[in-house]
Amino acid sequence: MKLSINTTGKKTSYMQKCIGIAAHFLVGLLCLMNCCVAAIPKIERWGRYEITLKGLATGNPYTDVVLKATFSNGTDRIAVNGFYDGDGVYKIRFMPAKTGVWNYVTISNSTLLKGKRGSFQCVPATGSNHGMVKVWNTYNFKYDDGKVFYPFGTTAYAWTHQGKDLEQLTLKSLKNAPFNKVRMCVFPKYYNYVTNEPEFYPYQKISSSKNNDGRVKFIWDFKKFDPAFFRHLEKRIDDLNVLGIQADVIIFHPYDKGHWGFDSMGKANDFFYIKYLIARLASFRNVWWSMANEFDYIRSKPRDAWDAYSAAVVTNDPYRHLCSIHNGSVYYDNWKSYFTHVSIQNGSPVEDFGRAVLLRDVYFKPVIYDEVCYEGNLPLRWGNLIGQQMTEAVWQGIIAGTYVTHGETIKTKGDTIFWAKGGVFKGESPARIAFLRNIMEQGPGPLKLADPWKDNQTAQTDSTYYLIYFGKQEQKEWRFSLPKKNGPPAGTKFKVDIIDTWNMTITSLSDVFETAAPNEYRIYDIHDKKVSLSGNAYMALRITQIK
Amino acid sequence: MKLSINTTGKKTSYMQKCIGIAAHFLVGLLCLMNCCVAAIPKIERWGRYEITLKGLATGNPYTDVVLKATFSNGTDRIAVNGFYDGDGVYKIRFMPAKTGVWNYVTISNSTLLKGKRGSFQCVPATGSNHGMVKVWNTYNFKYDDGKVFYPFGTTAYAWTHQGKDLEQLTLKSLKNAPFNKVRMCVFPKYYNYVTNEPEFYPYQKISSSKNNDGRVKFIWDFKKFDPAFFRHLEKRIDDLNVLGIQADVIIFHPYDKGHWGFDSMGKANDFFYIKYLIARLASFRNVWWSMANEFDYIRSKPRDAWDAYSAAVVTNDPYRHLCSIHNGSVYYDNWKSYFTHVSIQNGSPVEDFGRAVLLRDVYFKPVIYDEVCYEGNLPLRWGNLIGQQMTEAVWQGIIAGTYVTHGETIKTKGDTIFWAKGGVFKGESPARIAFLRNIMEQGPGPLKLADPWKDNQTAQTDSTYYLIYFGKQEQKEWRFSLPKKNGPPAGTKFKVDIIDTWNMTITSLSDVFETAAPNEYRIYDIHDKKVSLSGNAYMALRITQIK
Repeated sequence: MKLSINTTGKKTSYMQKCIGIAAHFLVGLLCLMNCCVAAIPKIERWGRYEITLKGLATGNPYTDVVLKATFSNGTDRIAVNGFYDGDGVYKIRFMPAKTGVWNYVTISNSTLLKGKRGSFQCVPATGSNHGMVKVWNTYNFKYDDGKVFYPFGTTAYAWTHQGKDLEQLTLKSLKNAPFNKVRMCVFPKYYNYVTNEPEFYPYQKISSSKNNDGRVKFIWDFKKFDPAFFRHLEKRIDDLNVLGIQADVIIFHPYDKGHWGFDSMGKANDFFYIKYLIARLASFRNVWWSMANEFDYIRSKPRDAWDAYSAAVVTNDPYRHLCSIHNGSVYYDNWKSYFTHVSIQNGSPVEDFGRAVLLRDVYFKPVIYDEVCYEGNLPLRWGNLIGQQMTEAVWQGIIAGTYVTHGETIKTKGDTIFWAKGGVFKGESPARIAFLRNIMEQGPGPLKLADPWKDNQTAQTDSTYYLIYFGKQEQKEWRFSLPKKNGPPAGTKFKVDIIDTWNMTITSLSDVFETAAPNEYRIYDIHDKKVSLSGNAYMALRITQIK
Repeated sequence: MKLSINTTGKKTSYMQKCIGIAAHFLVGLLCLMNCCVAAIPKIERWGRYEITLKGLATGNPYTDVVLKATFSNGTDRIAVNGFYDGDGVYKIRFMPAKTGVWNYVTISNSTLLKGKRGSFQCVPATGSNHGMVKVWNTYNFKYDDGKVFYPFGTTAYAWTHQGKDLEQLTLKSLKNAPFNKVRMCVFPKYYNYVTNEPEFYPYQKISSSKNNDGRVKFIWDFKKFDPAFFRHLEKRIDDLNVLGIQADVIIFHPYDKGHWGFDSMGKANDFFYIKYLIARLASFRNVWWSMANEFDYIRSKPRDAWDAYSAAVVTNDPYRHLCSIHNGSVYYDNWKSYFTHVSIQNGSPVEDFGRAVLLRDVYFKPVIYDEVCYEGNLPLRWGNLIGQQMTEAVWQGIIAGTYVTHGETIKTKGDTIFWAKGGVFKGESPARIAFLRNIMEQGPGPLKLADPWKDNQTAQTDSTYYLIYFGKQEQKEWRFSLPKKNGPPAGTKFKVDIIDTWNMTITSLSDVFETAAPNEYRIYDIHDKKVSLSGNAYMALRITQIK
């Protein structure tokens, strides 16, 4: 609005005076509005704005009350669900992705909650806030602000159900570890090595009694959540965020064995839970949705139910967090549009060369091998990789343009297994994974095989940067050789670093290598130079163009 | 219709006489109808019934005339497209899958062709007529009559464009070879090792002239087919059928290099061609549709065009022949419903253990590795497998519950390459593939890995029959050991045959092996018996329960 106000006229009529007064009033009003704008809360991009409202605590607020808000900023308009947080308190959370003033208005079937209006100002992100992680370039990930994200995940399924001391210890371990993603279950886990009762339960308990076999039988009110459980979970997700770690939140899992019954609440309760969970968590920028761990082992949910569950997650999530579904022994239809990326359980693809790439080619989505067996000493084969095997798995995935999630199942007397409860990392692979992560983050970008299906060892970002991995091969010499496919022109100069992936050393060679004209399939050095190697296993080469 | 006729009444009224006469007439009529039924043509189930009609030859009958027929038998009612066959002749072909009398009526925009009625009797199949091949049990194939079909295909892309002598020679070679499926192009091929002009062209030629570079430039009327081309193709497909060979008919391919232009006729002409081709070929029971060879190398057709092409094939095909799409270096979305099975080009999955199964797990369809490089001596890497490699590829596929197609690119002076033009097989692998096919057809059923992702060598039909393959491993001894997963109970007795897959010998051991109780993952012999092996590569074991 442009105001043209005459306050300097020599002669002023009554009308002019009136206009003058009105103008003064308007200027004052604008000042007041400016002051208000200045006073509204400031929230960073991808931060969390929370509306707290007082409403009725009678009846069942979880089922009785509908609460939403619409947030708008210019032409952007986003509707989000609110939720009941207990004690008559209702909340609506929102994560703004666009700077500027956001206004909201609430919608509710409760007169106490509806029509509430407010504003906040979204300001640029600072520090380690890079936004949400999204799919980038079909096979890879980037934060909203453009920073590349290489997932180097680990697994701590029930770490948030272990009480404050152990949970703090887990956070301390994660702070010093290379992992930037944690697979973690919402519901507590009842399985080998983790059968403890959690401090918080997701639902209000109607009763618990002992069965004839001495086991506790719980009866829950699946229509009444326990907000304390979710507040605790949220605290832990925020704790991870502070550490720069993505929370790969597992919505359902099969590890219940009839103990709590959270794996078999019935379809209506499942959908009710999904809606509540997402209303609470969607505004956490480091959340990824994992529809399930081992979806096919959850006997109460048939295969064809997962489309509807996945659709419910996507529909309720205004921000389109990353979403996947993790399998037991049978994959889901990972090509379906609910899934932003592919979360695979299968150790075989990253055990040897030529395998991991085969699944990368199928789905046209990023592939994360989220369970490839674990570094550990359990008697079971899924839990007894040695450090070298776990480390090789991560390398095999990386050079094939995929990603691999770590897990540790090392059991020592009186200590917890990180994979189950969290605690302390005792394995040999985390340091090596840190070493690899560092190489990746120093490099120019994600890798892919330069000549897929033919050369399973030579990864590249483009023709200026290669990482060649030898796995278990023990060789004394490497003849400088790159695939012609996607390769550099003749006369390109390279430096070569010898990487010992196990001993974590990088040895830079002083030689300069220069590419000859390619033959049908390969490019050699003009003098056919070779590189001497130690003959150890687990060696790699980094080949970087000299500019 | 049940007739109750009084012919023995003592007193007959005039009315009764009339009824009597009418009854005699009716009986006579029924006799006549029976005679007619006896006289109508007899066609075997899955045979071909052809209606030939005389119509107009003026204008462009390919575009001007609509012709269909509806065939009915009881509640079955199937509509099929007819086609113009030149010289004023129109045809409609139908393949009945149900015995009994089929009646038809034609529908047309031409008064000469519409409303024609007729019948034939479908009688049981005889001899080698087992019907169409269909998907069975998710990953495998069966004929309509229940006979298992193990695809052992080969490749002869342009064999039908080589003239009578060479084509007859090809048929003779195929008769003596183990291959029961041939990948073959409808359109002629212009590529390395095959640049000859065919005897027949699919379209009527408007003109041909020499370009400045000496190459012939053809101008075709893409709205007028040449029936002679298709009659010849049909003859060859029937020739294959006599040999029990499936024709994997490649509808589009990229090997044209601007020579004829059949790879870039434009969308409308492509659909016109699909409809005509399917009207002609759908009644051939041994036809499979391959949407393309190397679809992604056909530059004129963008990736997203293939859905519509595939839909057109499926829509026009009343019998739902097997249908797939074959890739170059990028897979298509093989999960889409048009495709009954997965046709993969990629040699890597069958080069070594643990790979082929990875794609089998993805799509929930049979997987045929239809191009895995070829046994040959070409300078190009896709054409220079040695016989052992080609043979191992087929074994690697089979033990992983997939199938592999052979191809031969052996060039000898003055001779044709089978992969391109057909001719004579000169390689070492066909005999070994025959040997394997025989083993499979003697066995109880298709294979799958018993303990997938963990044991990549041990295939089973069920716990009574195993095939273990050692590939390039050279070992002197094998400890009797089966996966616990899907395994037999303790006390099950087995015989063991040692198979030399290269030298094509089967040595039956006289020892009886008896399973002990399993440990966590494996089952051994109660006396921990071992099997002595030659130490050669390419050995396998057949382990059969003794009943």
